[in-house]
Amino acid sequence: MRRGRFITLEGIEGAGKSTQIAPLAELLRARGLEVLTTREPGGSPLAERLRTLLLDPDHQGMPATTELLLLFAARSDHLERRIRPALEAGRWVLCDRFTDSTYAYQGGGRGIDPNRIAVLEDLVQDSLRPDLTLVFDLPPELGLGRAKSCLGQGDRFESESRRFFAAARAVYLERARANPRRYRVIDATAPLAEVKRAAAAELNAFVDALEFRS
Amino acid sequence: MRRGRFITLEGIEGAGKSTQIAPLAELLRARGLEVLTTREPGGSPLAERLRTLLLDPDHQGMPATTELLLLFAARSDHLERRIRPALEAGRWVLCDRFTDSTYAYQGGGRGIDPNRIAVLEDLVQDSLRPDLTLVFDLPPELGLGRAKSCLGQGDRFESESRRFFAAARAVYLERARANPRRYRVIDATAPLAEVKRAAAAELNAFVDALEFRS
Repeated sequence: MRRGRFITLEGIEGAGKSTQIAPLAELLRARGLEVLTTREPGGSPLAERLRTLLLDPDHQGMPATTELLLLFAARSDHLERRIRPALEAGRWVLCDRFTDSTYAYQGGGRGIDPNRIAVLEDLVQDSLRPDLTLVFDLPPELGLGRAKSCLGQGDRFESESRRFFAAARAVYLERARANPRRYRVIDATAPLAEVKRAAAAELNAFVDALEFRS
Repeated sequence: MRRGRFITLEGIEGAGKSTQIAPLAELLRARGLEVLTTREPGGSPLAERLRTLLLDPDHQGMPATTELLLLFAARSDHLERRIRPALEAGRWVLCDRFTDSTYAYQGGGRGIDPNRIAVLEDLVQDSLRPDLTLVFDLPPELGLGRAKSCLGQGDRFESESRRFFAAARAVYLERARANPRRYRVIDATAPLAEVKRAAAAELNAFVDALEFRS
């Protein structure tokens, strides 16, 4: 059996990732693939409990290293119990946020040394990395406006400052530039239908290239 | 102001650590020192919530790496919010279990490579290590008998096998042998009053030596 592919959706608040995941999963299913859609932080019962802790506005004073370790604890549970078994069973995994979010938010946003993040990435993931990462890109002032209008009160991450999101966005773009084989940047300032078309085109091209090679 | 000292109590289940902490704190107070007593996992509100998750028998299938990261997440919150501030304010800290427990239980018991534990120890603690560690030592068959008779139903750690605790004990003794400056092994098979006397003697000797040097 052929191993499934691991695809992640990334971007700052309001970039529309979470709206895109269902149509992208449909696209893959229409091409005959089995698909698991999931999200981080969370994706397994224990990791969802950790998500609740992480997003709780009561924990505003959480030390940055504690937050970082909780994110990777949740990720390791999610990986071992859901993502790895799905990939090994030949299913494709579409995940809303993964370790790029940690580099963007905890690295860029909170200023944690990316080498500390890389240590945990290796410890938890070994050599596993996403096969394709779609970055939904837009300026934070636009993203924050959108996130607020749909959600009302923000959680602990949504209530961060514009500077925080600008730093997170810069990390996404830098990581995409450094590894164009894996990342595709999608202009998320465009109207929703156009963003959806662009994301679908990237995903179709990725599947085409795999089929062509095999 | 002189920095406080960091003293940890270690040992397998039923070794009597938790009973010893209050008299040892009294001893230090009687010598004019300010003392914080605390425990792991736990010791801060967030870390106590993580303790509940970690000890919950429902999470029996938790991957070993997830457990390891949760323990260090709890430790980093406890360190940043309670232990470091106390030490910096000149208070002595007496802690029931610390990173030696991780080497003993997750390393020895679960077979996690100690190098993985060391990576997290450095990440979370930087150069901070206990100044003195008292290891309450006894054979697991004796410890487990004691733990069962006082607690009834065991939590997730207490329900581990005898082999698990034998491996944990071996790690404690090995670490103590490798670093006799920091560790003192106390024979916990002796009657309670004698164990208490032995622990008090070690702690008094430690304070004497510090006073003599200054």
